[in-house]
Amino acid sequence: MNRVDTALVVGVGLVGGSLAAAWRKVGYARRVLGFDRNLEAANVAVERGLIDESVTELPAHVDVLVVCTPSDQIAAQIAQCAAHADLIMDVGSVKEPILETLRGQYGGVPENYVPCHPIAGSELSGPTAASADLFDGALVVLTPETESRLSEVAAAAWECVGAQVSSLSAAAHDQMLAVTSHLPHLLASAYMQQVEAPALPFTGGGFKDFTRIAAANPELWWRILSMNKAHVIAAAEEFITHLKAFTDTLEAGDQVAGVQALSEAARLRQQL
Amino acid sequence: MNRVDTALVVGVGLVGGSLAAAWRKVGYARRVLGFDRNLEAANVAVERGLIDESVTELPAHVDVLVVCTPSDQIAAQIAQCAAHADLIMDVGSVKEPILETLRGQYGGVPENYVPCHPIAGSELSGPTAASADLFDGALVVLTPETESRLSEVAAAAWECVGAQVSSLSAAAHDQMLAVTSHLPHLLASAYMQQVEAPALPFTGGGFKDFTRIAAANPELWWRILSMNKAHVIAAAEEFITHLKAFTDTLEAGDQVAGVQALSEAARLRQQL
Repeated sequence: MNRVDTALVVGVGLVGGSLAAAWRKVGYARRVLGFDRNLEAANVAVERGLIDESVTELPAHVDVLVVCTPSDQIAAQIAQCAAHADLIMDVGSVKEPILETLRGQYGGVPENYVPCHPIAGSELSGPTAASADLFDGALVVLTPETESRLSEVAAAAWECVGAQVSSLSAAAHDQMLAVTSHLPHLLASAYMQQVEAPALPFTGGGFKDFTRIAAANPELWWRILSMNKAHVIAAAEEFITHLKAFTDTLEAGDQVAGVQALSEAARLRQQL
Repeated sequence: MNRVDTALVVGVGLVGGSLAAAWRKVGYARRVLGFDRNLEAANVAVERGLIDESVTELPAHVDVLVVCTPSDQIAAQIAQCAAHADLIMDVGSVKEPILETLRGQYGGVPENYVPCHPIAGSELSGPTAASADLFDGALVVLTPETESRLSEVAAAAWECVGAQVSSLSAAAHDQMLAVTSHLPHLLASAYMQQVEAPALPFTGGGFKDFTRIAAANPELWWRILSMNKAHVIAAAEEFITHLKAFTDTLEAGDQVAGVQALSEAARLRQQL
């Protein structure tokens, strides 16, 4: 592991607090600083030992800076912070709109910015839910426009906390995550809108697992779904096509086709 | 606990094997017998100690008999076995079609039959997956046409293995479970049909939980969905309405309505 002197985490919630704690645990940086406009969150991060120190102003220079604010604030933070760090990363769940905003509103994408998305989380949020183990075994997708020495530095910063790193274009990332992450949230949430409170006792473990993500932070998920809305709406429309095909099969009593559809889904899921 | 002399479990798969094992564990019956046309399953049930003894013919008389075969075979088994027991129960996930089949094809519903549905399971199946703890804390719904002393005996047989018991009409049960159990399976399965194998690495814990039930036994679930298809199709149609309402909100960028919909879903889920 190539250690650095100073790392700064901007936004010490679930993801930022967990990354800071993980970096501290493995000794990635001599000092892990935290910056959060929410002073209560910053205090919790210090008290829980997620960060070494809370700062209220941007230091003149740090080695690595990672922006862990809500997705719709990331572009502005990148633009504001890039000159203060050798390497700047983020953890946003949607990548292309951040690049578009940087190009459209902030004069371009800083050369030292490596866009990142750790596929790890929880239905919980905030520094109280942060854990140094959050990224252990998780996949982190990097979406740099060109591979460079900096992408390798960024990859190493994630690998040292137990993550696997993979690269995709920002567009491919957003389209894929619309299906693998954003659509399940949308479906679980739409489903919960159909469930009546008195029915809750008549549910089992399957229901609990299926709906767990519907308990996630509404504001945070509204931002993610909105930023990726073209891909998300297309994915939802494709889903409706699959669902209708299955209810047609059910209506027709076509056992062969029905069992085949259920079997294909089961086989793919069993690969996990 | 009112102990009985002999209990017979017909079908020693996940649910039947688990109930037999649970009854043995708490000493509900002096002997717990198992009957399964699949001799390999019967042998596994004996070897794992789920049952005291495997029988290949129906005994002349047992105190309690529970039919744990796939849903579409239950009515025939009830008709065939009812005269051999004081109390006969089943564990079918759909109740009304069983009663209709008994009335239409077998001359009526036996007076000693108490329909039961334990809301407990697993994406696994067979006696190798059976566990004496499966019903601990689970809800078991009884759908007797009239409450009788026998429904109390049936309730006690479940309560002694840690289950809670609730009563509903068969029609209300089937309509409610279409929403709380059958629809999630349908949605998870339809969703998996949209996921491409190369996308699997780009999934996190949310995806895993959301899709777990899609790995369940396809034949078993085809039978359940088919038996309850009118309610299931109606539930799927209602779901599509909720989903489209949300994607319309997303398309329109209506943050207030979007966050409100996500919040209502999250609040209800958090009640669990």
